[in-house]
Amino acid sequence: MELLLPKGTRDFKFNEEILRQRIIATIKKIFELHGFLPLETPILERFEILKAKYAGGAEILKEVFKLRDQGGRILGLRYDLTVPLARFIAINPTVKLPFKRYQFGPVFRDGPIRTGRYRQFYQFDGDIIGVKNILAEVELINIVKEVFKTLGIDVVVKVNNRKLLSSILKYSGVKEKYIEKTILAVDKLEKIGKKGVEKELKAIGLENRVIKKLFWFLNKKGKDLIRILKDLMPENEGLKEIDSLFKYIKEKDVIFDASLARGLVYYTGTIFEVFDKEGRIKSSLAAGGRYDEMIGKFVQKNMEFPAVGVSFGIDVIFDLLRKNLPKLSIDVLVIPIKEYKEALEIAKKLRKNGINTDFALSERSLSKNLEYANSLGIPYVIFVGKKELEKGKIKLKNMLDGEERLITLEKAINILKKNRNISGS
Amino acid sequence: MELLLPKGTRDFKFNEEILRQRIIATIKKIFELHGFLPLETPILERFEILKAKYAGGAEILKEVFKLRDQGGRILGLRYDLTVPLARFIAINPTVKLPFKRYQFGPVFRDGPIRTGRYRQFYQFDGDIIGVKNILAEVELINIVKEVFKTLGIDVVVKVNNRKLLSSILKYSGVKEKYIEKTILAVDKLEKIGKKGVEKELKAIGLENRVIKKLFWFLNKKGKDLIRILKDLMPENEGLKEIDSLFKYIKEKDVIFDASLARGLVYYTGTIFEVFDKEGRIKSSLAAGGRYDEMIGKFVQKNMEFPAVGVSFGIDVIFDLLRKNLPKLSIDVLVIPIKEYKEALEIAKKLRKNGINTDFALSERSLSKNLEYANSLGIPYVIFVGKKELEKGKIKLKNMLDGEERLITLEKAINILKKNRNISGS
Repeated sequence: MELLLPKGTRDFKFNEEILRQRIIATIKKIFELHGFLPLETPILERFEILKAKYAGGAEILKEVFKLRDQGGRILGLRYDLTVPLARFIAINPTVKLPFKRYQFGPVFRDGPIRTGRYRQFYQFDGDIIGVKNILAEVELINIVKEVFKTLGIDVVVKVNNRKLLSSILKYSGVKEKYIEKTILAVDKLEKIGKKGVEKELKAIGLENRVIKKLFWFLNKKGKDLIRILKDLMPENEGLKEIDSLFKYIKEKDVIFDASLARGLVYYTGTIFEVFDKEGRIKSSLAAGGRYDEMIGKFVQKNMEFPAVGVSFGIDVIFDLLRKNLPKLSIDVLVIPIKEYKEALEIAKKLRKNGINTDFALSERSLSKNLEYANSLGIPYVIFVGKKELEKGKIKLKNMLDGEERLITLEKAINILKKNRNISGS
Repeated sequence: MELLLPKGTRDFKFNEEILRQRIIATIKKIFELHGFLPLETPILERFEILKAKYAGGAEILKEVFKLRDQGGRILGLRYDLTVPLARFIAINPTVKLPFKRYQFGPVFRDGPIRTGRYRQFYQFDGDIIGVKNILAEVELINIVKEVFKTLGIDVVVKVNNRKLLSSILKYSGVKEKYIEKTILAVDKLEKIGKKGVEKELKAIGLENRVIKKLFWFLNKKGKDLIRILKDLMPENEGLKEIDSLFKYIKEKDVIFDASLARGLVYYTGTIFEVFDKEGRIKSSLAAGGRYDEMIGKFVQKNMEFPAVGVSFGIDVIFDLLRKNLPKLSIDVLVIPIKEYKEALEIAKKLRKNGINTDFALSERSLSKNLEYANSLGIPYVIFVGKKELEKGKIKLKNMLDGEERLITLEKAINILKKNRNISGS
């Protein structure tokens, strides 16, 4: 038997998992501060729902893990958390609006593996259903900024608008029938570069002068471009939305970028993508946008469900932060010297005081136990032996400087409380 | 398109999910207090590993969701968290021992659905690898007691020992070749009753007098039975283990029960199962035991990996507690009366103070916003209008008694801090 993990998956051990849980807890806390509530949906969905044409689209569908249950029903592993949300609203169309939910968990795509791409990866999503107002985008972008500030990552948020992008394409001379394909090609700009995109655009059927005109816009950014577009298309709805977005968001590190396209077909307005400012990692750390039509199509009752969402890529964020793994969460190791019952009672008291207490369960040499404490970075050790117990005391050893003190348990508890490792949660 | 969930799966919305997260956070905290560290493994495993004969066994294998990746490799959805742990140790056989890890997450079994049984369900496991000493069992049973005390559920922990059970079967006259089948039949006692088990035992080939003798033991419990067995088989290893376990565990609500069998084949010593004391739910809330051989067989290097573990059934615990769903976690709803920018600043300040703040994003009537606040049980509302701002104040409305106060934001923050909902984490 080969002892292998499935391709594109990985384990997270000890301080890796503590870091991962800390990233998740940080995002969760910030969504809760913004009035979002949690939803959990299954990892399995009916394949019929995943393949709906207004869901993720044909490109993603190729990468769905497909399986059957014992009743022969075709199921799939979810490839994002947005389609399950749409399915949830469709099953419960009378939920109170606005519906602000967060959700995190693994999603699956059976695609090619490369750096930073996994077949099982973790997303943390927040979505606001039922709000047409641009303030919904403002809330999400503020959440994005707050999350990365808290995580200590400097980011740039690139913002664009699908309606505006379509208008720029049309203005440059791209025919209606080529719009969608052109957007998917432009989306690859970061990945395959200007030359690669030009090649794809030619393959689609765009003329050279159209491509040249298009890149004239795509090369410009920020306020300058907004000014130019206001002259060219003053009544454009997408432009007005971008304009009013920047009324509420300070432009610093949030930049209007006409070359931002986003691969998914379901976006209808604002789109945004978040990148590491230092460029240490090319993939986006988070991304999102407005998709006013998808949920309504799932509900199929001629009801409107305007929606805007953001998805944080936990794996990319983890890969960026893993160079500084946190300490382990154990505060002290209790080593009984024959006195098991008393040592267990002492461990119990330490735990009651909120001190993360490991207990030397095996009978083995002192040096082995100390080596174990060292290997896990446990800062203190408590010895419980007959000698100590007779004096009503314990021996506390500081593993860093080697100092040993014969003190009461109460005193030890005070010292340990002051020196607590911060736990993963 | 039918809008259905896959059979045997479910969504958890808002306060349901808050309860679920709270159960998970409670168990996590208690494991951390006991010096356990986290591990996360993928939901997908290679099918070859899941089907290893020393893994979950033939019964479980029938229920594995099987699938292929694009490279044609056969994978499966994990059916528990123990086999992935064994696979992890096998890939990393030099990890420091003892290895005390906790892990939680969904597991999958494509079995028949009935009350309390799902095809996707959540387990929270803790395992101690590398300790032969009975103190490992003592730690896990203490953790079990602490978890259910914290969750407010009175439980009974039934304890038995596989070695002792085998000896009782042999003593009763069960032939060696029938031992395993007899254990699987006895395991169904709670489910199908004494008569059902008797029928199965006859079908296996046990004689009436053997069945009668066996039930003479199975009907007895606790200290009385231990005393009888000490006379009959004083040198029995399993009995000695049970005896030394009860040296460290107060017998109250932890009971030796010779009829406890546990379905899984890989147990080698102590086994235990936890039940609701009030009998509101028949399924066990948690279960575990010693399995000294499984991991070594995965490692295949003639190394010993004694192990003992416990698994909490989050779904069963959730179903037991769901009658008292917690409140939602939103502390206040900020309603801007035209003054969006200022209201956003106020929301920001509230959030900086740790107050979970929802924001009325849509332009809609006051009554609609108040109705929304009521429907989510939001206890306070803040109005931000021109009138209030000119006085340097805001209006705070208590949704419970309807009282409105024109006060400074600082004063409102103090009131809201004192009345915080406790969040899910």
